[in-house]
Amino acid sequence: MAIPKKTIERLSLYRRLVHDLKRQNRSTIFSHELAAMAHCTPAQVRRDLMTANIKGSSSKGYDVTELSLGFDAILLSGTIQKAALAGIGNLGRAILSYFPQRSPSVEITAAFDTDPAKTGRIIHGCRTYPIRDLNHIVQTQDITIGIITTPRDAAQTVADDMVAAGILGILNFAPVPIRVPGHVFTEHLDLTMSLEKLAYFSRRNA
Amino acid sequence: MAIPKKTIERLSLYRRLVHDLKRQNRSTIFSHELAAMAHCTPAQVRRDLMTANIKGSSSKGYDVTELSLGFDAILLSGTIQKAALAGIGNLGRAILSYFPQRSPSVEITAAFDTDPAKTGRIIHGCRTYPIRDLNHIVQTQDITIGIITTPRDAAQTVADDMVAAGILGILNFAPVPIRVPGHVFTEHLDLTMSLEKLAYFSRRNA
Repeated sequence: MAIPKKTIERLSLYRRLVHDLKRQNRSTIFSHELAAMAHCTPAQVRRDLMTANIKGSSSKGYDVTELSLGFDAILLSGTIQKAALAGIGNLGRAILSYFPQRSPSVEITAAFDTDPAKTGRIIHGCRTYPIRDLNHIVQTQDITIGIITTPRDAAQTVADDMVAAGILGILNFAPVPIRVPGHVFTEHLDLTMSLEKLAYFSRRNA
Repeated sequence: MAIPKKTIERLSLYRRLVHDLKRQNRSTIFSHELAAMAHCTPAQVRRDLMTANIKGSSSKGYDVTELSLGFDAILLSGTIQKAALAGIGNLGRAILSYFPQRSPSVEITAAFDTDPAKTGRIIHGCRTYPIRDLNHIVQTQDITIGIITTPRDAAQTVADDMVAAGILGILNFAPVPIRVPGHVFTEHLDLTMSLEKLAYFSRRNA
């Protein structure tokens, strides 16, 4: 059974919140407490846990360890999933340094760029390659996730190359939408759009 | 009249697409062409342009220059809006280097950190200060936008400080939601959530 996208987003947040509770040695938590931390309703939390088939006693509260194991089972696959990043600019480098500490089940194993000065090196622990090697590396390393941090003009070509190499999900940071076949999942993190929206609404509020 | 959030998101994208068309010396464009580039429907484009009160002849196509001016008038304020960034780690630095080239109407004029080694300097053209100066700097520089790139544990305190200083919109990159009063607009860019979601759906597709 596929869990809806919005539910997965909340499960990802619950997972991290519950992880913090475990570090603080909390043993149980009520849905209304988790809801308050996640900024949603207790009914939403209970519905999400049911959808995810995570058991718990809502009268005595949920067992923190059981919740934690349940979230991990859904969100972290047993094996590490490999990711390839294309576009080693400032944003690409930041992603290379940022994700390894935060996503235990995803590892960026290869980064690509057209600039020879940026390739054949190790940046934040990740080996870098010329973009023409993308197909070969993705296939030999069995990489399933792509991260695009290229300039706008390169985004679609890189996306096409990633899809042709067999990548199944693309996180796109380029300021332009990409087209992919239906079997590929994409998520567009458009930083410029977010900032312009924020600017618009902070003017309206002023 | 306030334009809905989702419409502003699309207008931000149209603005950049139309800007590209102008560079390519295109003079007119049909709604179905803009829709294809933005990955939405022609009806959606026409509705958005109406909502934004941007005129055009849909029979002969829209004038590219008029569209461009219309989008700019809505999304770019006449004056530069100032932003403050808190948390000068790898992600914070990437944001400092990334945004100036992309958002003509927003300028990050101050960055803050608790680490003395990171303050009293200029990083990617932005002056950096100790976090305790945030209130003073935000008020004297009339900063209205906040960008949070701190670790999780610091995010809420920094958000509270930003709101207390008069900031009206916060772009939150920390992997935890923040609470703000109703008059403050927030946008949460949760990179870990995006990656976990992507990992989940690229497994499901496999």
